[in-house]
Amino acid sequence: MKIEQINVSSSKREEFIDITHKVKNFVNESKIINGKITIYVPHTTAAVTINENADPSVPHDITLALNKISPHLAQFRHLEGNSDAHTKSTIVGCSQEILISNGNLVLGTWQGIFFCEFDGPRNRKIILGIA
Amino acid sequence: MKIEQINVSSSKREEFIDITHKVKNFVNESKIINGKITIYVPHTTAAVTINENADPSVPHDITLALNKISPHLAQFRHLEGNSDAHTKSTIVGCSQEILISNGNLVLGTWQGIFFCEFDGPRNRKIILGIA
Amino acid sequence: MKIEQINVSSSKREEFIDITHKVKNFVNESKIINGKITIYVPHTTAAVTINENADPSVPHDITLALNKISPHLAQFRHLEGNSDAHTKSTIVGCSQEILISNGNLVLGTWQGIFFCEFDGPRNRKIILGIA
Repeated sequence: MKIEQINVSSSKREEFIDITHKVKNFVNESKIINGKITIYVPHTTAAVTINENADPSVPHDITLALNKISPHLAQFRHLEGNSDAHTKSTIVGCSQEILISNGNLVLGTWQGIFFCEFDGPRNRKIILGIA
Repeated sequence: MKIEQINVSSSKREEFIDITHKVKNFVNESKIINGKITIYVPHTTAAVTINENADPSVPHDITLALNKISPHLAQFRHLEGNSDAHTKSTIVGCSQEILISNGNLVLGTWQGIFFCEFDGPRNRKIILGIA
Repeated sequence: MKIEQINVSSSKREEFIDITHKVKNFVNESKIINGKITIYVPHTTAAVTINENADPSVPHDITLALNKISPHLAQFRHLEGNSDAHTKSTIVGCSQEILISNGNLVLGTWQGIFFCEFDGPRNRKIILGIA
């Protein structure tokens, strides 16, 4: 298992940041031909998803939908006021697994990998593990 | 890592298709005794989940609930009109990992594996990776 | 792949149970230095998530939010009356993957691992697989 950390900086409270090229670079450098990569977010108000990266309206619309799905609720107890972001992290998930075949990520034609910021702006880290 | 593609065809816009037997066949053919399988959906308006496959009312009810959770929103920008499906893909997720022990999938008694169509009918593919 | 089962007992219908220490114990016993662990829930009305375990208000608030996101719907057909719990299981997910580096789980500072009960109280099992 080869492990590396990459960094991203968000500039808004909610933001999808395309990290596909960063993940591809790590796969190339690893020289792994057949295997699998884990993309892991070590934060509790962020997540990682795989979705369309051709039209920027798609991450815009998913962000909008997640705000409707997980709004601020009057009954929340957590004093930091970001329980909506913790909930989004749990429903989207903090890791993704992608197969590697012939040295390439096995992504679909329209798929890209997005770091999902739900409580920015912040400096964040992402852990990549490949084997 | 042994990789194989399987195909499914959906016949409705939203549909859960049980692929448990197809995944089991691949595990059997692979001769892997102890390991893990990745079930990966390379599409951005579909997903894969593990849930009850004994009573067909369960996938029916989850599909119904997901339509309430992720409806069409007036503020969506994506011109294809399927942002609700992209959102469902992100909240359900495009991959699952299942352990293999003594040559068998480590599934619970009531668990089956479902391909989740959110923007059908379409011909879709699923990538299986085992090691 | 080393596989082990751990057990948890829930005492309410909805409950997040911190299993971080149980997972760490298994990692220590396994003597794996670099690798990955799969945490798999073989139930269809439960799940596993990674989120903040410092302030108990966070799992409280996520549970509350999930009840709003996935309520009981009049149109549900499943006669057991727990389709809201099946839906939560699908949106949270029944497994998590965590990297292991230098013999330790690669968790973020505030991250803990929670078994998510959505249809308790019950005795439940969790399968751990490490390699």
